[in-house]
Amino acid sequence: MQKAKIGLIGLAVMGANLARNLASKNILTLVFNRTAAKTEQFMRDFGTDPCLQAAYSLEELVEKLERPRKIIMMIQAGPAVDAMLDTLIPLLEAGDIVIDGGNSYFEDTRRRSEKLAALGMEFVGMGVSGGEEGALHGPSLMPGCSRKAYVQLEPVLQAISAKAGDDGKEPCVAYIGTDGAGHYVKMVHNGIEYADMQLIADVYSIMRHVLGMEPEEMAAVWDEWNNGELSSYLVEITAAILRKKDAETGRPMVDVILDVAKQKGTGRWTSMSALELGVAVPTITEAVFARNMSCCKEERTALEKVYAGMALAETACCGKKAAFTPEEKARLLEDLRCSLYAAKICAYAQGFNLMGTASETFGWDLRMDQISKIWRNGCIIRARFLDDVSDSFAKQAGMKNLLFSDFFADALKKGRAGWGRVVALAAERGVSVVALSSALSYFDAYRTANGNANMLQAQRDYFGAHTYQRVDKEGSFHTEWME
Amino acid sequence: MQKAKIGLIGLAVMGANLARNLASKNILTLVFNRTAAKTEQFMRDFGTDPCLQAAYSLEELVEKLERPRKIIMMIQAGPAVDAMLDTLIPLLEAGDIVIDGGNSYFEDTRRRSEKLAALGMEFVGMGVSGGEEGALHGPSLMPGCSRKAYVQLEPVLQAISAKAGDDGKEPCVAYIGTDGAGHYVKMVHNGIEYADMQLIADVYSIMRHVLGMEPEEMAAVWDEWNNGELSSYLVEITAAILRKKDAETGRPMVDVILDVAKQKGTGRWTSMSALELGVAVPTITEAVFARNMSCCKEERTALEKVYAGMALAETACCGKKAAFTPEEKARLLEDLRCSLYAAKICAYAQGFNLMGTASETFGWDLRMDQISKIWRNGCIIRARFLDDVSDSFAKQAGMKNLLFSDFFADALKKGRAGWGRVVALAAERGVSVVALSSALSYFDAYRTANGNANMLQAQRDYFGAHTYQRVDKEGSFHTEWME
Repeated sequence: MQKAKIGLIGLAVMGANLARNLASKNILTLVFNRTAAKTEQFMRDFGTDPCLQAAYSLEELVEKLERPRKIIMMIQAGPAVDAMLDTLIPLLEAGDIVIDGGNSYFEDTRRRSEKLAALGMEFVGMGVSGGEEGALHGPSLMPGCSRKAYVQLEPVLQAISAKAGDDGKEPCVAYIGTDGAGHYVKMVHNGIEYADMQLIADVYSIMRHVLGMEPEEMAAVWDEWNNGELSSYLVEITAAILRKKDAETGRPMVDVILDVAKQKGTGRWTSMSALELGVAVPTITEAVFARNMSCCKEERTALEKVYAGMALAETACCGKKAAFTPEEKARLLEDLRCSLYAAKICAYAQGFNLMGTASETFGWDLRMDQISKIWRNGCIIRARFLDDVSDSFAKQAGMKNLLFSDFFADALKKGRAGWGRVVALAAERGVSVVALSSALSYFDAYRTANGNANMLQAQRDYFGAHTYQRVDKEGSFHTEWME
Repeated sequence: MQKAKIGLIGLAVMGANLARNLASKNILTLVFNRTAAKTEQFMRDFGTDPCLQAAYSLEELVEKLERPRKIIMMIQAGPAVDAMLDTLIPLLEAGDIVIDGGNSYFEDTRRRSEKLAALGMEFVGMGVSGGEEGALHGPSLMPGCSRKAYVQLEPVLQAISAKAGDDGKEPCVAYIGTDGAGHYVKMVHNGIEYADMQLIADVYSIMRHVLGMEPEEMAAVWDEWNNGELSSYLVEITAAILRKKDAETGRPMVDVILDVAKQKGTGRWTSMSALELGVAVPTITEAVFARNMSCCKEERTALEKVYAGMALAETACCGKKAAFTPEEKARLLEDLRCSLYAAKICAYAQGFNLMGTASETFGWDLRMDQISKIWRNGCIIRARFLDDVSDSFAKQAGMKNLLFSDFFADALKKGRAGWGRVVALAAERGVSVVALSSALSYFDAYRTANGNANMLQAQRDYFGAHTYQRVDKEGSFHTEWME
């Protein structure tokens, strides 16, 4: 009997869809699930495909795979991965390749890589992005492993990945780096996704609370924006969401969904890693905190009563209460579009900056042009925008921060005035736009040669003798402030 | 010979000053330092005080202390503490008390507490705030330990601590909670300090870049503010800093100090713990990130050139270039004062909120009214403000967030309009005020019953079938968006 090309452990929706994706590319795939009933159900549903076979024990799985074995684990990140490895490793031999396609913490992946390497086996921490649909039709894949393991996997990964580029044939997979690199890059992808989503939510807030637009009307604007430089999956689904009606009540779906957003951890990890590495990712972090605040529904509801009727600032353009004229509204919508684009550039700048420092810290040699390329399709943050990011990194080698990109600098220069008006308006009107305003502060801080940290250093030297540097000569200095 | 009351290990500046503080209260103190030369120097400088004695080995230290022994370690946080404990523990016996007065990570303190408890010894993780001056003249002390250990230490701690209150006799020390509670509270104190300092730096930026004020003129404003509700150590030293001239050049000190601010870790830890526990502390975190950005001096200088001449938004009050009239300037200064006060309330709200969740998570039963009381003097964030914080927590038992305080709600209601104008002006003028604007977003998000996370949940359900809750009934729901 023909040995299977690849084994897949874990038939929850992501695993099942990835197995079907593999089979659809004529890759003989052997699936296994801890609960046999799930495997049986999967085979009943999809087993007519001759490229899908089932194993009912790990021994059977290992026995029926060609060597060196390639096994993808699609199981829950955390202790379950270690438990599975403990069971699996004794059945494997040197040269075999184990792939973890879950959202594992990159430090765990580094540890596991080391463990398997000591046994002569290959461990691949692979970021898989695109949700259920991506897993089935083509995800963006971010494998972190040895080059040797990558070469062996490349044909399979290229076959199942999403495709991008003008000809639609460039696979959304590339060699990322050793050990935890793939999961790290996937983690930052998710952190950026948090910021991307919160920026959209912020713009939605202004449309709703300042412009008083109905979801249907907003949808038309998002559709229009999706034809321009904002063109992206998230903008596309925002339009679709705003247009969707609740089957039960006939109301717009967004109006019946509770404003309480959960999170699974990768956004938080991105912020924690950034804090650890000393890289500023304020917009990503504000997006994470915004979800935390969203969960305090009860407090928010009570506080709205506490602060009811509070006086806000007068607004420049048209007073506090007055309606917007059609011209004012059109200008504000264009300002919002510019703000979203500019803030998006800053959120990505933060994410790429973080990956740059992580790359140096962990010795990964990450290629930012490659990473942005494989995010162009398959994943949640896929966007036309990423072509330009990739081009910028390719053209301006060694670029320290995306804000240096000639292409994006032009966009930021054009958008800055409108962005300032939007954040100002929100501040005056009392509408919280955490991500839009945090990105603006980031941009302004980063483009300011002389910031305000001289005051911090003076204070630190005053109360703690922490010393400071001077603007006019090298060295470390301390002042006797109280003399 | 009379046994010493307390032993102190580590004669760097904090340890030396704390020893002198102990001796000044007639507490017979036995000091030890790993390097004998440092001990000798200390004794030459201060050994005329009969309450200061030296030990030149740990054996000698342990031998000459009354039992149960009380030993304060003032050594560098991290592995040095574990190394010292490893050496010290075999010399001690059950009932002895070891105090760590460094800025140790609270999880380390939890681990060490457990270790010593297993040996029948008491470990005290004690936050010591106030810098060198505080250590010498009276710090704010935050001990985390068993109640039994605290009772034994209380007389000594009360003697050496700062004093506060109307009669100036209330010691700035209280029982905080078990194991890591003291170091956790000190960590959050420092996180709040980061935010407090960044808020001041933000206001300074507006005075400098928008109002074009000279440091001397600013100093007068800060002095005036220090007489009102902003009265605090940090505001006081800000005035002193702004008035200080560089001895060498005659220029204002703030103008010769480089805008690159370092950090030692407690601010970052606060943010990381908040992310871990799911509590929003955006203003503290923006302050941490601002320091990271300050360190990118080279990039900032280069980016200023990239974005030179970029068009900003028109400003409402007086156009973009025009000077401020005296009336406008006075109004803006009052707006700045209100902004600083309001944003400060929000930064503290975040810190106390975090401590509340940590208290539940780690079983500490933290008393917020007590904590704010012992911060009223000795520590860096000491302020009149903390009387009101303490009163609020005492009056409104179980208050979930400082924003619920009747007292501060009044202040926020009064200040919100001016705060909005300041953040708007900064956004239009291109001046980064990361902390002022982040606090505003926090405030507005928290007092909004219906936020924008419904959009996030819709997106999450669209691309990941993550489900959502509804506004009109209980349960978990999923929509087939693409139908």
